[in-house]
Amino acid sequence: MVLELVKEDAKGDVSPVGLTETKFYTFDNLHLESGELLTPVTIAYETYGNLNSEKNNAILICHALTGDAHAAGICKDTKRLGWWEIMIGPGKPFDTDRYFIICSNVIGGCKGSTGPSSISPKTGKPYGMSFPVVTIKDMVDAQAKLIEHLGIEKLFSVAGGSMGGMQVLQWVHSYPEKVMTAIPIATTMRHTPQQIAFNEVGRRAIMTDPEWLGGDYYGVSFPANGLAVARMIGHITYMSDDSMKEKFGRRRRNKERYGYDFEADFEVEQYLKYRGETFVQRFDANSYLYITKAIDYFDLGDNRDLIQRFYNLKTKFLVISYSHDWLYPPYQSKEIVRVLKYAWVDVTYCEISSTYGHDAFLIKNQEQEHLVSHFLSNAYEKLTKGEK
Amino acid sequence: MVLELVKEDAKGDVSPVGLTETKFYTFDNLHLESGELLTPVTIAYETYGNLNSEKNNAILICHALTGDAHAAGICKDTKRLGWWEIMIGPGKPFDTDRYFIICSNVIGGCKGSTGPSSISPKTGKPYGMSFPVVTIKDMVDAQAKLIEHLGIEKLFSVAGGSMGGMQVLQWVHSYPEKVMTAIPIATTMRHTPQQIAFNEVGRRAIMTDPEWLGGDYYGVSFPANGLAVARMIGHITYMSDDSMKEKFGRRRRNKERYGYDFEADFEVEQYLKYRGETFVQRFDANSYLYITKAIDYFDLGDNRDLIQRFYNLKTKFLVISYSHDWLYPPYQSKEIVRVLKYAWVDVTYCEISSTYGHDAFLIKNQEQEHLVSHFLSNAYEKLTKGEK
Repeated sequence: MVLELVKEDAKGDVSPVGLTETKFYTFDNLHLESGELLTPVTIAYETYGNLNSEKNNAILICHALTGDAHAAGICKDTKRLGWWEIMIGPGKPFDTDRYFIICSNVIGGCKGSTGPSSISPKTGKPYGMSFPVVTIKDMVDAQAKLIEHLGIEKLFSVAGGSMGGMQVLQWVHSYPEKVMTAIPIATTMRHTPQQIAFNEVGRRAIMTDPEWLGGDYYGVSFPANGLAVARMIGHITYMSDDSMKEKFGRRRRNKERYGYDFEADFEVEQYLKYRGETFVQRFDANSYLYITKAIDYFDLGDNRDLIQRFYNLKTKFLVISYSHDWLYPPYQSKEIVRVLKYAWVDVTYCEISSTYGHDAFLIKNQEQEHLVSHFLSNAYEKLTKGEK
Repeated sequence: MVLELVKEDAKGDVSPVGLTETKFYTFDNLHLESGELLTPVTIAYETYGNLNSEKNNAILICHALTGDAHAAGICKDTKRLGWWEIMIGPGKPFDTDRYFIICSNVIGGCKGSTGPSSISPKTGKPYGMSFPVVTIKDMVDAQAKLIEHLGIEKLFSVAGGSMGGMQVLQWVHSYPEKVMTAIPIATTMRHTPQQIAFNEVGRRAIMTDPEWLGGDYYGVSFPANGLAVARMIGHITYMSDDSMKEKFGRRRRNKERYGYDFEADFEVEQYLKYRGETFVQRFDANSYLYITKAIDYFDLGDNRDLIQRFYNLKTKFLVISYSHDWLYPPYQSKEIVRVLKYAWVDVTYCEISSTYGHDAFLIKNQEQEHLVSHFLSNAYEKLTKGEK
């Protein structure tokens, strides 16, 4: 592959992956877990690297709550770097010289795939809250249609963190024969009440914002305040007590004295405010509702049933957790490992020590790079040498 | 003392403390940490038990964020039990047969003490956001005026959890000679950025509620949605991952299937909704802003300075933390102990094992009862025997 080192003047970002463009695949319909039929369905996706002639080098990357299909390279339109640029590219763990990388936006999202801001064929207007509730299983079923469309029978790997990790687990659950290796990171087999609670407060902030208008705000208003509050709550859970101390401490914007008012006095307040305000410019409030609901509904099932289902599964697993992740704490990853071990599945587990918290998997980290790189290389060499 | 066992028909609550009534003490003015002068100042307070002739059996109980002066007994007007009924009464750890218990509402609050909903003497209208920012030190200074008014020179003890614990620490910092024993529970010497962040999101939810009207909503509207969201966030931090699992699990209201809609599907959602909705009926949104701000500003100072300040302090300490408290985790209590130990102060520390989380100190707990009871009895016996 030719190294297309692209420099984007405005932000100065460079990417060896080069310029990327989001593509779209539309299919007739998808039967949802709720019993409803979604029709038609469009999936936004990007690919990096090339599919080999054996079609056995495809890796599906699954994004988290607010991610999109643009996982690597410089987006042709926005000039922004991909959200997992650190992990995807030539010579990187998801090596584009070797693997064919696919990343698609989930259904229910707002980055090109069909979601609540899409036009409903019934009304000719945006769905809003008439969009059917989707689940992680529905997201994966839609991805499966895309993979089929791309002519891939079996994925070499499925990988992702947080909600991306839930999709990884769901892939193995729904299509065990289609996944050679799986890398669930900082994730869980089921959402706990505390995790549901954080999402529910965010949803309530959005839905009680008068600008939400029952979800029919498109072209009229936007529940920016509610969505910003939801994002601020989210951000607290993505960092850790320690990382917030390292990053902000009790530092104030005015170093001389407290403001003794209700302006953002502390740096951490200013940071959250900024995060909230920038987020509302790039994300749809209804998609936030639908995707968090999908996450809350996520429950792969009872552990004993899972052991039976996964019994002697041929998929190889690399499970990664982060020491200071209190949103999806290491004990939840260990539970995945325990189930897989009881099912006699080949699984490697590593808890990476990092003060950063949940979002650590999105940040440059040698240990994560090495683990993924080594795990995939090993499996790929065995595959190409004909071993099983 | 005569056991006045009062039964309240409506709720069926009984209390050996009997019927209680909130009293009020008004004084001319208070110089605030911000440099502003608050005038006049009213303090709402209750007392239980009797002050002895030596006036050496008085214990000040300090309440947390949303507490009030009604710590024990049945309130004459509302018929409600006090918030620390489990700890205060004849034969209980704060034994009203032996001690004279005082509890006062903090300034900035909305339960009888001067706060943003009080009438400003300048305008004849409620202060709203023209109320000056108050700090934990200001709250304690106001309590000191009350204690003086009650004719007490020296408190036998000051005790409280959470923000109450901050007041305990501030009492020892501001008036070391006036505090014989101190019981800070589930608290910290300074608010961390994560703790500030949770408060700030709550404040933002309130202040972006259109019904907030810049704080001048009295008699016009009420930012109920914003305050409910703030309370819901708070409640998540008061419980623990484990206690939420025990209490709610992933149980749904409709046990048959998911609702596949945005109603409160899970029991935990319903619980938070209920908590938010009932809270707005009893608490003023502006007070929530002022009190959380006071908590965020709380910083007793640099540890080395504190060691110097507390050096050879005669106050005896009992420091209690809770194992599953992730809002004010045990490490913050241990830091208090470390500072006191370096200052050669007599301190006993116990981390109580409880899955409940931060609010564990408000719930019946034999270990807390025993620790406090034993600590106070020991100190009181030494005091009355003339030992030091």
